[in-house]
Amino acid sequence: MKILVTGFAPFDGEEVNPSWQAAELLAADPPPGIRIQAVRISCVFGTALQELRAAVEDAGADLDLVVCLGQAGGRTDLTVERVALNVDDARIPDNAGRRPVDEPVVAGGPAAYFSTLPLKACVAAARDAGVPASVSQTAGTFVCNHLFYGLAHLLATEHPSVRGGFVHVPYTPQQAAAHSPTPPSLSVRDAARGLAAMVATAAHTTVDLRVTGGATH
Amino acid sequence: MKILVTGFAPFDGEEVNPSWQAAELLAADPPPGIRIQAVRISCVFGTALQELRAAVEDAGADLDLVVCLGQAGGRTDLTVERVALNVDDARIPDNAGRRPVDEPVVAGGPAAYFSTLPLKACVAAARDAGVPASVSQTAGTFVCNHLFYGLAHLLATEHPSVRGGFVHVPYTPQQAAAHSPTPPSLSVRDAARGLAAMVATAAHTTVDLRVTGGATH
Amino acid sequence: MKILVTGFAPFDGEEVNPSWQAAELLAADPPPGIRIQAVRISCVFGTALQELRAAVEDAGADLDLVVCLGQAGGRTDLTVERVALNVDDARIPDNAGRRPVDEPVVAGGPAAYFSTLPLKACVAAARDAGVPASVSQTAGTFVCNHLFYGLAHLLATEHPSVRGGFVHVPYTPQQAAAHSPTPPSLSVRDAARGLAAMVATAAHTTVDLRVTGGATH
Amino acid sequence: MKILVTGFAPFDGEEVNPSWQAAELLAADPPPGIRIQAVRISCVFGTALQELRAAVEDAGADLDLVVCLGQAGGRTDLTVERVALNVDDARIPDNAGRRPVDEPVVAGGPAAYFSTLPLKACVAAARDAGVPASVSQTAGTFVCNHLFYGLAHLLATEHPSVRGGFVHVPYTPQQAAAHSPTPPSLSVRDAARGLAAMVATAAHTTVDLRVTGGATH
Repeated sequence: MKILVTGFAPFDGEEVNPSWQAAELLAADPPPGIRIQAVRISCVFGTALQELRAAVEDAGADLDLVVCLGQAGGRTDLTVERVALNVDDARIPDNAGRRPVDEPVVAGGPAAYFSTLPLKACVAAARDAGVPASVSQTAGTFVCNHLFYGLAHLLATEHPSVRGGFVHVPYTPQQAAAHSPTPPSLSVRDAARGLAAMVATAAHTTVDLRVTGGATH
Repeated sequence: MKILVTGFAPFDGEEVNPSWQAAELLAADPPPGIRIQAVRISCVFGTALQELRAAVEDAGADLDLVVCLGQAGGRTDLTVERVALNVDDARIPDNAGRRPVDEPVVAGGPAAYFSTLPLKACVAAARDAGVPASVSQTAGTFVCNHLFYGLAHLLATEHPSVRGGFVHVPYTPQQAAAHSPTPPSLSVRDAARGLAAMVATAAHTTVDLRVTGGATH
Repeated sequence: MKILVTGFAPFDGEEVNPSWQAAELLAADPPPGIRIQAVRISCVFGTALQELRAAVEDAGADLDLVVCLGQAGGRTDLTVERVALNVDDARIPDNAGRRPVDEPVVAGGPAAYFSTLPLKACVAAARDAGVPASVSQTAGTFVCNHLFYGLAHLLATEHPSVRGGFVHVPYTPQQAAAHSPTPPSLSVRDAARGLAAMVATAAHTTVDLRVTGGATH
Repeated sequence: MKILVTGFAPFDGEEVNPSWQAAELLAADPPPGIRIQAVRISCVFGTALQELRAAVEDAGADLDLVVCLGQAGGRTDLTVERVALNVDDARIPDNAGRRPVDEPVVAGGPAAYFSTLPLKACVAAARDAGVPASVSQTAGTFVCNHLFYGLAHLLATEHPSVRGGFVHVPYTPQQAAAHSPTPPSLSVRDAARGLAAMVATAAHTTVDLRVTGGATH
């Protein structure tokens, strides 16, 4: 199995991005039988999609799976995103100073794509490894969702045999220590451990578990 | 202008549903020049969509707008939903005991529909009236999202000139007083006041404000 | 029965203070058989205690009860404070620009005073009136706690027959509408209704209910 | 320097208590020049105080410092408690099924004791080590506060040269993975690292930093 894992550059005044730290750790110590290529993506609308396309092309024809990672400061656990929306609506500027409002990621694209990862199996695998995880119903409307939508559109239109999805990672304890009031955190070590369990599960699971991961609102 | 406003029956052990209380108050005292028909919808997958279709047909050919309301216990403000997803994933049973997991609302329907309300103008109108409001990126995966998706699909496929959307309403103070720890709340009176401002705005606004209502995740 | 109720001037950039708005409403429409005198207190360390002392002296010898109110932006309900601490530790400047750090309210005073209001009976009374309320284990270390400690010390040392306590009030919906993300709120009308139930209960209750209002941490 | 560190037995349905896990790790790998004795305390009103007294006596005349630890499920960081209250008010039963309501920890004792740890220096030391920490204004009214008050009373009345305090520890990621929605967590490894920094600082610091650790409410 060959898996592409992406993480983001730091943004919003942070010095690190735990999604990239976790991607590097994951690539350095992948689950047995799995090759992981880690690529760092710019936190810039548009540019991020160009870099993703290049990374997918570099990965070659034997690519099985793409898992994009992003930082979700304030969340408590690894969150496997259910859906990517065809909208950019930036509450803060990206790293190039862009702030699109209610623009499509892909003009003429469908309103949304569902993740093709086995969401509930991934959550269960991380929890079994002692790492908190849950399904998320929204990846936001910033560069994370932008990349997720771009990935889903790219795979659906040009690489239909490759599955893909997005997982959000909390702040690290080091990042949390610099904020007040203190937000939740998860160590990069634990994040990478949970992601390894998810990636190994996603690699071998095509039919998801029939357990709820829903929200009443 | 003729507007259909729906609210839900109580669910999850509550004795009231503020979405229906607010819908009744709104219909009893509508904004000038607007006729509002309030209809109560069952909190039951499938049944809710049949009742909605009947209400839309009853409303007749001069229907301009449909605004569905639902309870979002735990939220702090009126939340105008951006998008409806084609998925049912019930964390708790509905009022008929059904708990679908990862089933489509409409088999073969698109992954999602965006609201056709002017989201940001509605939020601004409520805030101007002194009622807290914001854009929400997820309506969950329970009966509220089910109804919202069903509405959007019905309008898109059979009533393309009618616009529609969904707004979530917090618990009332009375409901909050029965929970521990105390969740946030908003009085029905304030909710109805904010919804009146939203409905009046939506009735007369087709091009939305260009202000952010996005989320980084 | 004669009750002194104090509220605070606006602080921290707010244009109103719901504690004063609620105090005025309460004084204008007191519970039967109760006279309420409402006094506005400056949000300034030291000055607040001088104004409180003057208000207690003005109230005269037939004063039965003093209930001080303050704004607790971010809380969801009326919170009856259990204890006042002999410490000032200002996270933000007061209205005169003072920021004491770890100074005693009263040099040589005891570490803390417990409220002499019937905490649990007050909470139950507000809830019975449909207004959310709970016991709080901390009034913070800013001017609210400062006033509460000053009140408790004044009553304990000079007016031992007068009982007194402190209740925190959430933001109003209007205040909440100006913050992002939206904090919880309670209308002044509902706050005053809950406070009326508390004040009437405190006036006639000297032995508290034996129900828990505790916290595990 | 000789330091007694206590942790609690598991309670409230948990299989572990991170306060004890961290205490063990800390004792196994203490900061240079510091001897740490770790003792596990029962989560039982009354019994906890007997066990603490025995542990202090066992530690002998050269004991310098006592730091008691407890679990605070839901908190995001290491929280150094400012004050212990003379009240037991149990929201849930302790491990012996006892649920005291509004009873004093020590009949006739003062309302509260302040921690004699350098609170702000401890917080700063943990943050410098990359571990999130903050001052807490309340240790609750359950067995943690009970032990903290009992410790403070014991030291004040019988061991005036020994300083002492209390630090709350979040859930571990493993614990958090078993709750829904997922609460915040901190790994035992990170908790122990932050506590080592705190203990080393407390051992050598008698005058605290003049920085705020306060709360507006």
